[in-house]
Amino acid sequence: MRVVVNAAMSADGKLSSRRREQIAISGPDDFDRVDALRAGSDAVLVGVGTVLADDPHLTLDEPERQAARRDRDESAHPARVVADSRARTPTDARILDDAATTYVLVAEAAPTDRVEDLSASGARLLTAGEERVDLERALASLEREGVEQLMVEGGGELIFSLFDAGLVDELRVFVGSTIIGGRDAPTLADGEGFVAEFPDLDLGDVERVDDGVLLRYAVE
Amino acid sequence: MRVVVNAAMSADGKLSSRRREQIAISGPDDFDRVDALRAGSDAVLVGVGTVLADDPHLTLDEPERQAARRDRDESAHPARVVADSRARTPTDARILDDAATTYVLVAEAAPTDRVEDLSASGARLLTAGEERVDLERALASLEREGVEQLMVEGGGELIFSLFDAGLVDELRVFVGSTIIGGRDAPTLADGEGFVAEFPDLDLGDVERVDDGVLLRYAVE
Repeated sequence: MRVVVNAAMSADGKLSSRRREQIAISGPDDFDRVDALRAGSDAVLVGVGTVLADDPHLTLDEPERQAARRDRDESAHPARVVADSRARTPTDARILDDAATTYVLVAEAAPTDRVEDLSASGARLLTAGEERVDLERALASLEREGVEQLMVEGGGELIFSLFDAGLVDELRVFVGSTIIGGRDAPTLADGEGFVAEFPDLDLGDVERVDDGVLLRYAVE
Repeated sequence: MRVVVNAAMSADGKLSSRRREQIAISGPDDFDRVDALRAGSDAVLVGVGTVLADDPHLTLDEPERQAARRDRDESAHPARVVADSRARTPTDARILDDAATTYVLVAEAAPTDRVEDLSASGARLLTAGEERVDLERALASLEREGVEQLMVEGGGELIFSLFDAGLVDELRVFVGSTIIGGRDAPTLADGEGFVAEFPDLDLGDVERVDDGVLLRYAVE
């Protein structure tokens, strides 16, 4: 499986403000790039924090891209995946609609009633790990479901966990031309943070997009 | 006065790890660039957090640059400045040695004995603001001392405060090819953070330096 992390951050590394409100960091060209990357992926993964804060739909905007996927005998949209150790995804979340298959990755500690509610709402539950989702095992389960390219759209807690587990193959960061600031604002990689060994990235393409710059890294 | 903020951050916007330990984010070419920028500045400003964490010297590495400054009838090194509301700079801090003039910007609330100790250690005290340094007034005082170009080297609390006060003219960020992570790690702009209006930056040069990329922004 190939894991591609994609995010838009401010010039100071923030994904949103301390209020966790969505901020227009990029523009139409970057949105289109993200849509194309989604279209080329088998599944799109977000953390439950992103679902709770933004209620994203994670489907393709462009009808042509949906048609092209159908022409390849694929679903119109990539599958949607939530990393959600405690099964906190609301049953009325937009990602649970019937536009695409939705997987919820939970830990064994997830409350049974929540798991049952999500299952009844149409989600496919994948359990891995005791207290927190074991991402390595969960991604292996997704691979068995046919997911060869997994796009990760945040948030910072999930992105850190994936780097911490050594599961990221590529990072694409749009750096927007603004400052959000805030010691409590979500950043591209939150979590506990690294203190001794840090993942090495290999900078590839550097490209101006909208009023910012897109940086592409391979993870060594 | 022209205020140029310069910093090196990881690809996720961190200046150091959550332990506030210095991490080699950039390399020799970027260090040389920073030295040249210092040499072209009249003063270099840091926050007291940076002094306490890193005990920087903030002088020029290259003897040729020191000689060139002397040839222009300037001091060998730019002046050093600490934004230090409560006068917490240790009297044995490296920036208080006699290599260059050192200003400490304090608020009126700074303890008198600490102010006297710093003054006795050779620092020039500039007082502006009641509880916290009033940066606009403090920078005006520095300008009266002959500082026309002020380089700011961090940390994230000071950088946010300067953006918040609308005092930044230019931002230069080296983005290193690593991930530091950590919801408590210092970022390029910490502080309270913006929530409604965000400073607009205008992306200028984008240049590969060492294994990363240098982004230059004008502040609109």
